[in-house]
Amino acid sequence: MPKYTKTDFPVENVRRLLEPGPVVLVSSAHKDETNIMTMGWHMPMEFQPSLVGCIISSANHSFEMIRRSRQCAINVPTEEIAAAVVRIGNSSGRDIDKFDAFGLTPKPGAHVRAPLIAECYASFECRLVDASQVRKYNMFVFEVVKAHVAASPKYPKTIHYRGDGEFMISGANTRKYRKLFRPEML
Amino acid sequence: MPKYTKTDFPVENVRRLLEPGPVVLVSSAHKDETNIMTMGWHMPMEFQPSLVGCIISSANHSFEMIRRSRQCAINVPTEEIAAAVVRIGNSSGRDIDKFDAFGLTPKPGAHVRAPLIAECYASFECRLVDASQVRKYNMFVFEVVKAHVAASPKYPKTIHYRGDGEFMISGANTRKYRKLFRPEML
Repeated sequence: MPKYTKTDFPVENVRRLLEPGPVVLVSSAHKDETNIMTMGWHMPMEFQPSLVGCIISSANHSFEMIRRSRQCAINVPTEEIAAAVVRIGNSSGRDIDKFDAFGLTPKPGAHVRAPLIAECYASFECRLVDASQVRKYNMFVFEVVKAHVAASPKYPKTIHYRGDGEFMISGANTRKYRKLFRPEML
Repeated sequence: MPKYTKTDFPVENVRRLLEPGPVVLVSSAHKDETNIMTMGWHMPMEFQPSLVGCIISSANHSFEMIRRSRQCAINVPTEEIAAAVVRIGNSSGRDIDKFDAFGLTPKPGAHVRAPLIAECYASFECRLVDASQVRKYNMFVFEVVKAHVAASPKYPKTIHYRGDGEFMISGANTRKYRKLFRPEML
């Protein structure tokens, strides 16, 4: 499994990792317990503060852990650990310790107790800043307070869920349309 | 430019197109005017009703058109029209008619006045069902009331924004992890 060397990353740029739509792993800590869940429904909501909206079903063991601790880490996995990503989504923290069961390494964050996942390409330390839409939509609004991103490769092979057990793997990257952008739109 | 033959598609499955994170084109109609904007920040919120959350900056001409008409269409473009997608994002409906300026074909929807874009792979007719987070986050919650998806190709080359003028083009698709899913997780 990959072990990435990460550097600090401007929190207002975490959209560069999230906007293409990768499946992410959400890690949490509450009392003496840690957990990991797989999440596909998220979007950037603001540049600064760096806000991310997420849908976390109340059926997840992580739901109450995150709601009560008001923290989590959003980790971006790559294709190398796709099988673990699926297994994490198919099991419950009620039954197993997922770090242990799937051989993942918890790393301490700087601002949250939620453990960062060493085998992920990027980890974003998040504070829950708005729980007003939790009851209606299971929607959490997080502020990314610190971001850790691997120094290389430049383009991680992120995995994007299509439903029905199928993933799209991130493909070619192009800057050929960049000249068409007005500078303030970049 | 592509012209897709579209068929009806179950609204609860529009996540299959949106969850991998493509840039989309949002079309709208209000009074005698139509418009198109480029949007990167969206997420599925519920299967049934089929809800999609979107961030639409109030700086967009479309913002008031959608807020007042309480309707839009979310259209999924592919790489063939990437230059038009960027140009749509770089111009304002205050100044030009974007269908006309970029050679796109408006098609009538079944349930909304917002025109569907014929050159897009998929078009989702949407009703605004919750504007409560518009003031705070520029966030609109839409219900997809009808979906039109091209019969082929199976895998459209969607474009995924990375920031800084750069796009990721959707890559390989794999079902090799499907056997790891519990049936109810698919």
